[in-house]
Amino acid sequence: MKDEFEWIKTISPASHKQSSLIQGIGDDAALIKGSALDQIVCLDTMVEGVHFTQSTLTPFQVGHKALAANISDIAAMGGIPLFYLVSISIPPSWEEGELSQIYKGMAALAEEYDMDLIGGDTVSTKGPLVLSVTVLGQVEQGRKLLRSNAEPDDVVFVSGPVGDSAGGLSLLLERSHQGEFSTVEALLVKEHQLPLPHVGAGRILAKSNRRVALNDISDGMASEANEIAEASSVSITLFHDKLPKSAAIQHYPSKMQDEWMLFGGEDYKLIGTMSPDAFPEVQAACEKAGICLTVIGRVTKGTPGVLLDRGTSIEKLSKAGYNHFSD
Amino acid sequence: MKDEFEWIKTISPASHKQSSLIQGIGDDAALIKGSALDQIVCLDTMVEGVHFTQSTLTPFQVGHKALAANISDIAAMGGIPLFYLVSISIPPSWEEGELSQIYKGMAALAEEYDMDLIGGDTVSTKGPLVLSVTVLGQVEQGRKLLRSNAEPDDVVFVSGPVGDSAGGLSLLLERSHQGEFSTVEALLVKEHQLPLPHVGAGRILAKSNRRVALNDISDGMASEANEIAEASSVSITLFHDKLPKSAAIQHYPSKMQDEWMLFGGEDYKLIGTMSPDAFPEVQAACEKAGICLTVIGRVTKGTPGVLLDRGTSIEKLSKAGYNHFSD
Repeated sequence: MKDEFEWIKTISPASHKQSSLIQGIGDDAALIKGSALDQIVCLDTMVEGVHFTQSTLTPFQVGHKALAANISDIAAMGGIPLFYLVSISIPPSWEEGELSQIYKGMAALAEEYDMDLIGGDTVSTKGPLVLSVTVLGQVEQGRKLLRSNAEPDDVVFVSGPVGDSAGGLSLLLERSHQGEFSTVEALLVKEHQLPLPHVGAGRILAKSNRRVALNDISDGMASEANEIAEASSVSITLFHDKLPKSAAIQHYPSKMQDEWMLFGGEDYKLIGTMSPDAFPEVQAACEKAGICLTVIGRVTKGTPGVLLDRGTSIEKLSKAGYNHFSD
Repeated sequence: MKDEFEWIKTISPASHKQSSLIQGIGDDAALIKGSALDQIVCLDTMVEGVHFTQSTLTPFQVGHKALAANISDIAAMGGIPLFYLVSISIPPSWEEGELSQIYKGMAALAEEYDMDLIGGDTVSTKGPLVLSVTVLGQVEQGRKLLRSNAEPDDVVFVSGPVGDSAGGLSLLLERSHQGEFSTVEALLVKEHQLPLPHVGAGRILAKSNRRVALNDISDGMASEANEIAEASSVSITLFHDKLPKSAAIQHYPSKMQDEWMLFGGEDYKLIGTMSPDAFPEVQAACEKAGICLTVIGRVTKGTPGVLLDRGTSIEKLSKAGYNHFSD
């Protein structure tokens, strides 16, 4: 890249979708009309060599995934994603064409939700590429789909099968994204490379106006269920035979399936709890929208934590998601 | 660092200042009550080895400065800074005590404005430390202190002396922050290490409800004035003998002063333009608040650009601020 000012012009959108945007890229900060709706904001970072490598994701997919991870956090609050800001730290080894692809990957996903790119920062680094994305969203006043909302007797649900992303990652680490994949393998690989956040499910849950505890599955189901259990001071039991599995993942040994489903992460499905009385209505609304909410467990009083019921045995399920600083 | 989850607990504030905050750190995203005021948002990044080194800034100062740069962007929109999110990419060489100091540097500055830390991300990297900060703020409805607001006949003003930060940087590059500094030198060094954004001046300008073009001086006065000239399609003339100088900077040769003032950057003062009729009232209000607005130039019709009038000669002042990708 020769000139950051010229570069910023190439990534600045020519028009915007959201009528509430007063000023996007091109001033000191973005300016947005006030709204009676509650605001949601999150900031997530992807580092080359940690969250992805150039052999697991194409630049387009890096962009898609960085934005998807943030939209997923908005979905987990029941919100509508509206705006995003991108900070990119660029090493000399990345070429301008590849950087453009990162922004195209974000723009393509943003298009799905009529989101506008409204700001950020472009800087150089001697280290790996670092991509930080901030997403702003909105949700109807007073909706609080927090982890701390779970109560005893709640059902535990998930908004789709999990584990495919981890399965895809293991294939990519073996063969890289330029490798040859069977149809089944390609499905897993795609789940890792181009995950779709579950905004639709989050919106139905928010609009139900019921008490809902909700988390997106970024660090693995075991980790996310533990976060709900801890925040709500409840015990959660997951039923092993109820965990939804994609057809693709069922081609693999069951030990591998378990590892991917429970500890894999980056699935961006939603896991939550709500009262068994309120659940059927929400489940039906989701079904109508083509989203399958599956009951996978139950909340009980007890020591905060997660148990996995395998029918013949019950085991404690510790967090064991990806910890950035463990050995 | 051993465990990111434990670490996040240590940096999570025990209470918050802003009553509009519904949920801060501890869920998928932060949740904030809606407001009729317009929202402002920005995202800025500091990279070790590019924006600072461990010999120019202490970890506390790194934190202070990363937040200050973002608050300054809110100030340049006339806004009130309210919330911040922090994404940090941590190399193995940084120790937990140093990382805590980064957060303490941010918290100390946030305290000045009753700002709350409401989210972010903590990840590992094999490269240099990268710190991305998002700040959210508010401004009264319809106030647009944009770069594109300048009109011919406007006065050009600045909210304080500039160049000290660049002077301080040159001393730090020579001797590091552990070096010995005279009283004068220490003043310059402090301006580089612990700059204070000009929120007060921005607020007075916003509340005046006048047409104001405004920029914060992060990349040097020449660069910022050029941004206003380009965005507004006007010519700006700066009068060399009107540029305010600190007493400290006047100890140095005038060539050096010019270099630091015009191309130094990281001063976080505000530069702007407004009608000469409206200016005295705003200037008086600033003076009452202990802020000195100085007229340094004039806007005219003409080719977009900036001229420096030295009395005996006039020269074109190109951007020449720090470009991340020039050689």
